[in-house]
Amino acid sequence: MKISIIGAGLIGGSMALKLREKGIARFIYGIDHSQQHINDALELKIIDAEADLEQGVRNSDLIIIAIPVDAARKLLPDVLDLVSDHQTVMDAGSTKAGIVNAVKDHPKRSRFVAFHPMWGTENNGPKSAIAESFSGKAGVICNKEESADDALNTVEKVVNALDMHIIYMNAEDHDIHTAYISHISHITSYALANTVLEKEREEETIFQLASSGFSSTVRLAKSHPEMWVPIFKQNKENVLDVLNEHITQLRKFKAALEKENYEYLEELITNANRIRGILR
Amino acid sequence: MKISIIGAGLIGGSMALKLREKGIARFIYGIDHSQQHINDALELKIIDAEADLEQGVRNSDLIIIAIPVDAARKLLPDVLDLVSDHQTVMDAGSTKAGIVNAVKDHPKRSRFVAFHPMWGTENNGPKSAIAESFSGKAGVICNKEESADDALNTVEKVVNALDMHIIYMNAEDHDIHTAYISHISHITSYALANTVLEKEREEETIFQLASSGFSSTVRLAKSHPEMWVPIFKQNKENVLDVLNEHITQLRKFKAALEKENYEYLEELITNANRIRGILR
Repeated sequence: MKISIIGAGLIGGSMALKLREKGIARFIYGIDHSQQHINDALELKIIDAEADLEQGVRNSDLIIIAIPVDAARKLLPDVLDLVSDHQTVMDAGSTKAGIVNAVKDHPKRSRFVAFHPMWGTENNGPKSAIAESFSGKAGVICNKEESADDALNTVEKVVNALDMHIIYMNAEDHDIHTAYISHISHITSYALANTVLEKEREEETIFQLASSGFSSTVRLAKSHPEMWVPIFKQNKENVLDVLNEHITQLRKFKAALEKENYEYLEELITNANRIRGILR
Repeated sequence: MKISIIGAGLIGGSMALKLREKGIARFIYGIDHSQQHINDALELKIIDAEADLEQGVRNSDLIIIAIPVDAARKLLPDVLDLVSDHQTVMDAGSTKAGIVNAVKDHPKRSRFVAFHPMWGTENNGPKSAIAESFSGKAGVICNKEESADDALNTVEKVVNALDMHIIYMNAEDHDIHTAYISHISHITSYALANTVLEKEREEETIFQLASSGFSSTVRLAKSHPEMWVPIFKQNKENVLDVLNEHITQLRKFKAALEKENYEYLEELITNANRIRGILR
């Protein structure tokens, strides 16, 4: 089929590469505000041609919106205005309630399938795109009952081609779960980077000493604000809930240390170790 | 040379494998309270023979202490009591001021070299040992002026054989830097695991959704209390300093979200992104 990728960056680009490899995509239009991204995507054969929004959308069987979540929510109604009953629109955003609510009453709502691939890195742009990015990861489809059967089938075919396992979920539940499973990790990582940058004045020492443990906890702090401010904004209530709980949990470690209560400290750590049974 | 490894676990075992591979170790004694570790280490050819403390120490050119930091601090004076001026003792602990102070006035102080390899994983035991673990990482030698030249030379040869780059540091400075570069990462990771385990009741959902970002931030929460309680205990003041700063930094994210001050949120994230220039 013919596909338009709106946002030829890390996520859109990785999807394009894999869908072409799997023979799902015969022709791919790239739509992006950044001429640099378009040029890179053309050169890397991620897309076949540049298009403007109307041209791309009108000529595609599938339109994939892979731009920051606030922009996606704003753009989706315009895209749906352009599509016929033979076309499918999907997004790839990290928050789902906002976008689903934005088109709740749109006459073409059923052409849209709300999707979130549980993958990302701290990098961005088409040069970071990798075909195998999604393999083995979860692909969440939200509010599937609001999508037409054929649109849903198209997206399921796409998600299978990405080698992801599909999870169906309500958009509100999705946003609660991702606050825990993804959004809070980014906040702790940003805060950890700021902690170190604030107090550890010897940058050379950071660089020389940094252990693999530190690098893996701080890796996410490299993620760009263009993507993450909109996510935190759209999922504000859930993120605040989790953040409050996280600060409470950190205070327990603080109390254990201040009171030199090492039995309690051991208890806190032993409890945290239970994550071994869940994350393999 | 002949080497005794006291604590034939992840760190001691990995050092043994590499030192044998490099031809530095001709014969390796294993000394460990855990018979299981001894049996595993023998089977994996990490050690050549089991020994008790006195037998191992008396017959070795180099004694490597790779046990939890509180136990190491307690044991080191006994080991130094046993050694002659032709033998060298090194440790591999994550805190350094405590152990250095414990032997400050020991008549054999100069036979000891305080060492910390900046590597570890959330796993333990000889079965997790890997010869290449240390390659390219930093190996910190503390208070080198308190060690005899020949003992220092021996340890430098060992650290080079581990393919680590050597950093010399004062023990107090080491403990401040590692509070930032390693210890706080473990606390945030434990607290993050506890946050998720406290509020996210659907363990199956955690497992299914967990993204690579979450896994990398929570990975350290699998680390065992036997190792980490003693580290936090010995580095309490520094860890508390950093933890307080970290909670302050998290509160800034909380304030930005609560007040819907997204310019401030962007500023916080942009500041955190500076870690890109430091951690490559």
